[in-house]
Amino acid sequence: MRKILVIGFGKSAPYLLKYLLDKAIIEHLFITVVDIDISKAQFLIKNHNNASALVLDIFNDEQRANAIKNAHIVISMLPARFHPIVAKDCIAFGKHMVTASYISEEMKAFDSDAKTKGIIFMNEVGVDPGIDHISAMHVLDKIRAQDGEIILFESFTGGLVAPESDNNLWNYKFTWNPRNVVTAGQGGTAKFIQEGSYKYIPYQRLFRRTEFLDIEGYGRFEVYANRDSLKYQNAYGLQNIKTLYRGTMRRVGFSRAWHIFVSLGMTDDSFIMENSKNMSYRDFVNAFLPYSHKDSVELKLRHALKIDQDDLVWDKLVELDLFNPDKKVGIENATPAQILQKILTENWTLSNTDKDMIVMYHKFGYIIDGKKQQIDSNMVVIGEDQTYTAMAKTVGLPVAITALQILNKNITTPGVQIPIAKEIYQPILNELKDYGISFNEKQVPYLGYNPLNN
Amino acid sequence: MRKILVIGFGKSAPYLLKYLLDKAIIEHLFITVVDIDISKAQFLIKNHNNASALVLDIFNDEQRANAIKNAHIVISMLPARFHPIVAKDCIAFGKHMVTASYISEEMKAFDSDAKTKGIIFMNEVGVDPGIDHISAMHVLDKIRAQDGEIILFESFTGGLVAPESDNNLWNYKFTWNPRNVVTAGQGGTAKFIQEGSYKYIPYQRLFRRTEFLDIEGYGRFEVYANRDSLKYQNAYGLQNIKTLYRGTMRRVGFSRAWHIFVSLGMTDDSFIMENSKNMSYRDFVNAFLPYSHKDSVELKLRHALKIDQDDLVWDKLVELDLFNPDKKVGIENATPAQILQKILTENWTLSNTDKDMIVMYHKFGYIIDGKKQQIDSNMVVIGEDQTYTAMAKTVGLPVAITALQILNKNITTPGVQIPIAKEIYQPILNELKDYGISFNEKQVPYLGYNPLNN
Repeated sequence: MRKILVIGFGKSAPYLLKYLLDKAIIEHLFITVVDIDISKAQFLIKNHNNASALVLDIFNDEQRANAIKNAHIVISMLPARFHPIVAKDCIAFGKHMVTASYISEEMKAFDSDAKTKGIIFMNEVGVDPGIDHISAMHVLDKIRAQDGEIILFESFTGGLVAPESDNNLWNYKFTWNPRNVVTAGQGGTAKFIQEGSYKYIPYQRLFRRTEFLDIEGYGRFEVYANRDSLKYQNAYGLQNIKTLYRGTMRRVGFSRAWHIFVSLGMTDDSFIMENSKNMSYRDFVNAFLPYSHKDSVELKLRHALKIDQDDLVWDKLVELDLFNPDKKVGIENATPAQILQKILTENWTLSNTDKDMIVMYHKFGYIIDGKKQQIDSNMVVIGEDQTYTAMAKTVGLPVAITALQILNKNITTPGVQIPIAKEIYQPILNELKDYGISFNEKQVPYLGYNPLNN
Repeated sequence: MRKILVIGFGKSAPYLLKYLLDKAIIEHLFITVVDIDISKAQFLIKNHNNASALVLDIFNDEQRANAIKNAHIVISMLPARFHPIVAKDCIAFGKHMVTASYISEEMKAFDSDAKTKGIIFMNEVGVDPGIDHISAMHVLDKIRAQDGEIILFESFTGGLVAPESDNNLWNYKFTWNPRNVVTAGQGGTAKFIQEGSYKYIPYQRLFRRTEFLDIEGYGRFEVYANRDSLKYQNAYGLQNIKTLYRGTMRRVGFSRAWHIFVSLGMTDDSFIMENSKNMSYRDFVNAFLPYSHKDSVELKLRHALKIDQDDLVWDKLVELDLFNPDKKVGIENATPAQILQKILTENWTLSNTDKDMIVMYHKFGYIIDGKKQQIDSNMVVIGEDQTYTAMAKTVGLPVAITALQILNKNITTPGVQIPIAKEIYQPILNELKDYGISFNEKQVPYLGYNPLNN
């Protein structure tokens, strides 16, 4: 029996557990889920003989060490900041570890210890980061195998609401951490490369510099730039690339409306607003507009941001009930971002019957025999319900598959790493297909940003 | 002989030294100026018997301690971050200290020691901060003496170019630290109170939320909000005030043009631009605009920020030579703010014959016997030349006057403080008049922001 320890059981864990339970008998697995709250895990395990859920406080050193010592591999589904606590024990007891989170500086520091001990610390193996690495490297390596020179790579991901549950004017609902959505794009200028030129977009322009993407059968999307388009330039081997651009996908029109919040200052998370608790939604809007004894909040806002009377962006604001003088914020010492998040959560929460959707879109431009070509590759995953969401599926499945691949010694290179080597991504990609997660790849004419170069 | 030690001899020191030299014989003063570079001080002292300039490295503990031990009072004209080094010695040897800088947390911490030793640490006694405190408290106290209730206080200051030297489209030249001008408004949302409501302006809207002010004989100015309008609310005794607003003065049109830099991201000081050294001015602008193989940088900029073909704001950009493809930035690893500063410095540096100008404008709204009234008070100081600038005069004179007042025991309350008590501001204000620095005070109809309340 191979013992898998899953630490933390949040929203992205159900599909991970389902996969492992389904494989448990044939693969001789015993899965132990530990968390402070194990009700959800117990409900899903039911009376499966190869799994148990135990209450454990990860800050209790003895409990945590015992659990890790006793496992063959550890999957940490904790918030990223807690991974190093787990990693320390994994080093001490020589256990492999898998996470879906970005490699932090702290995690990176375990690299030489992990190598010395011959253990694998696989990170960024969820959806984004995760499936983006896997699917991109698959195509990049394929092009390189044909002696192709990569000149363009663009990659976009979005967590959205499924078309059948899409019933608001923003075509958006929260499928993950709302706070990250409200503060998205803050903390630094977006930087990317277009046709050999470095380009920069400050936060105040980020949601006005969007581009469109079409996915067959799903219509049109828009993307805004990520801050970190160049983050994987070296890891992907794209040092001499001409265009490198990563972004976030939304339905068309979202960003133009969101820009209103950015312009007014409503997404700011760095200061506390006076009297936030008793402030009405209307007061909240008005706090970002000049005082007037006669003009309405509505007209002041339209005037400040030059919104015409027949601009549909206005209906998006009205839909949120932003001008209601009776609804109170009700949060003591709140930042603008916290207040906005509260208002949006009232409007953008998935109902019990709603489904979510994950979309991903890559563009690969390359030259073979002097000819410019392009592959577009995209993926759409729709959630099953509110437990087996598209997010849970696309985060949890690659994590679970990776853990099993490590146990089965199909992945063997030790150290702190991400899934960009072929030995890692190929089996994951193959198996994801069985679960309906696959990329629609097609050859398209090379476009780039400079048709004169084609 | 009373010995005055002046540590640091920068741009704001000449008038301070002139004042002290002029008073030296009658007041029995001996002035010692210390700095690493004393050429300017020596030139101004000439062969005056009551002064000398000595080379001193303030980081040399022994040299510094000896100089301070030997003085009766110390004036620190060093950059604000170095005041605590001087303050420590002043505490040790029981010497009074005067600065023109904002009180830092480090300076504040000396308060109880200063009180124990019975010594005065007077700060914020330059122009802004300084003359703003002095002149505001003078009127506020006068209104309170008549049992007036203060309901509105607005205060604005600007360091500008004198009308006779004002020959560019921005009506602006650098009269002080250019870096502070380029990064002005960053670091937090501006907060103020209008008619009892807290109002917030994020950086991305700051230069679009301006107001106008007129000064007789000098025409129209505009103001944008300071981040810290409420900073002196308690110190000034304005706890229950309805409108409290502080800002920076510019000539009309400056802010609307400056907003273009903010929108594009050119004022950002938080990241380094790739290849900054070999970048042309035109490349610099283009880095903040989308790639295009056919459209000009000019049209992309006009389109992105919706600048009409006949909008005069465009000429302001052209005047800076911002679209020049041949002029190189020439700075290694530069931030956008550093590059912008370089370009602006080429255009906005005072020539040898140029004069600067300091403007200040206060509005005081109050109620006496149920009647709303208002006093507007403003000051204009024009520099004499490039040594005796308006900035040097308005910063250096109140510092020098204060130092002498302390020596003459007209100011006696010990501790770390700012000039808001009548015993302090009244003599300074009186003496400033002899040097042509005076406020034009007049009674105007109360306006406020809500005429219905009048």
